[in-house]
Amino acid sequence: MGTEAERAAGERAEQWEDVAPDAARRLVIAAVEAFAERGYHATTTRDIAGRAGMSPAALYIHYKTKEELLYQISSVGHRLSLRIMEEAAAGSGSPAERLGTAVRSFVRWHAERHTTARVVQYELGALGEEHYAEIVGLRREVDSTVRSIIQDGVDAGDFDVPDIPGTSLAVLSLCIDVARWFNPEGRRTPDDVGRLYAGLVLRMVGSAGTG
Amino acid sequence: MGTEAERAAGERAEQWEDVAPDAARRLVIAAVEAFAERGYHATTTRDIAGRAGMSPAALYIHYKTKEELLYQISSVGHRLSLRIMEEAAAGSGSPAERLGTAVRSFVRWHAERHTTARVVQYELGALGEEHYAEIVGLRREVDSTVRSIIQDGVDAGDFDVPDIPGTSLAVLSLCIDVARWFNPEGRRTPDDVGRLYAGLVLRMVGSAGTG
Repeated sequence: MGTEAERAAGERAEQWEDVAPDAARRLVIAAVEAFAERGYHATTTRDIAGRAGMSPAALYIHYKTKEELLYQISSVGHRLSLRIMEEAAAGSGSPAERLGTAVRSFVRWHAERHTTARVVQYELGALGEEHYAEIVGLRREVDSTVRSIIQDGVDAGDFDVPDIPGTSLAVLSLCIDVARWFNPEGRRTPDDVGRLYAGLVLRMVGSAGTG
Repeated sequence: MGTEAERAAGERAEQWEDVAPDAARRLVIAAVEAFAERGYHATTTRDIAGRAGMSPAALYIHYKTKEELLYQISSVGHRLSLRIMEEAAAGSGSPAERLGTAVRSFVRWHAERHTTARVVQYELGALGEEHYAEIVGLRREVDSTVRSIIQDGVDAGDFDVPDIPGTSLAVLSLCIDVARWFNPEGRRTPDDVGRLYAGLVLRMVGSAGTG
């Protein structure tokens, strides 16, 4: 169990590697766990400081409010989502290959980081007005990146898609919902789900290479 | 606005029509709204009683704990989900027609009742052990009903599905996640989403009638 727990702790820290200094990173990790367990509104800054082994005053040095912590988590999560999608879109393969890569990577993130992803996806309504607007902007960029891959496939005659915005919405929704149901003790690994979903999505876009 | 608000209030009450007496129904409606707004753990029975215009003592006559209210909501929601799926599965059409009906109905429920559906889907972890086991049993029945329709299509040679459990999971996940993103002020109605998704799902199962 020690090794497994250490690996999990390492993974938790790794996704926040750009959050500095170390105390701020510890607070973010504690906040994700607290929000995921009890919800944003039921968590106090005192709970978060306690989980991070710090005093409320020490928390206050890094984050003035609980909302600032949520914004930090949401911002890192959404920027990572966008990077995953942009890297897939910029790949050198065919539209079908790029769409498959996008789905596999996006699914893997939502499965491996399901605790973070749940907070990122379900607590949007608790963000302050300006932060919310910024995050919605990032979500639009993710959406338009998926659309652009699908559009490329349609333009190349590889895909047959009557409703490109609706199909993009469905592709993203399918990947995001992995965070809700994924169970690390279940029989499908993140990569299994990624492969399954990439195949299903290629069918959704009527990719000539399938079925 | 009066008419719209009245219509919305009517719809909220309608889905709980089997909850009796009237005071219990008012408490359930108040609990759904409170849980959806602030999360289960941040809501007190006092909050719920206040929203229903009742005293905490009056709440206690109907529900001994907050968890009993959550269980009531979850139970009604899951039994309705199962009924929707079973009715679609028992229909007289081809497997493709029955799968299309199942998706359209399930999407419509998750779109029109998105507030209830969010509570039902996201607060499962707060149920007590016995209640949780019962709800998981209902979820398994929903899942196996979808599988049976897909299996019928495969047996009839109408569908081409390499992974029936995985595809059933994806179909349900796609419909359930509508509750997260659906916006009644957006440009797609519940029926628009239902039609779009039924088409995408028929592609996922390689239905001969599509593409």
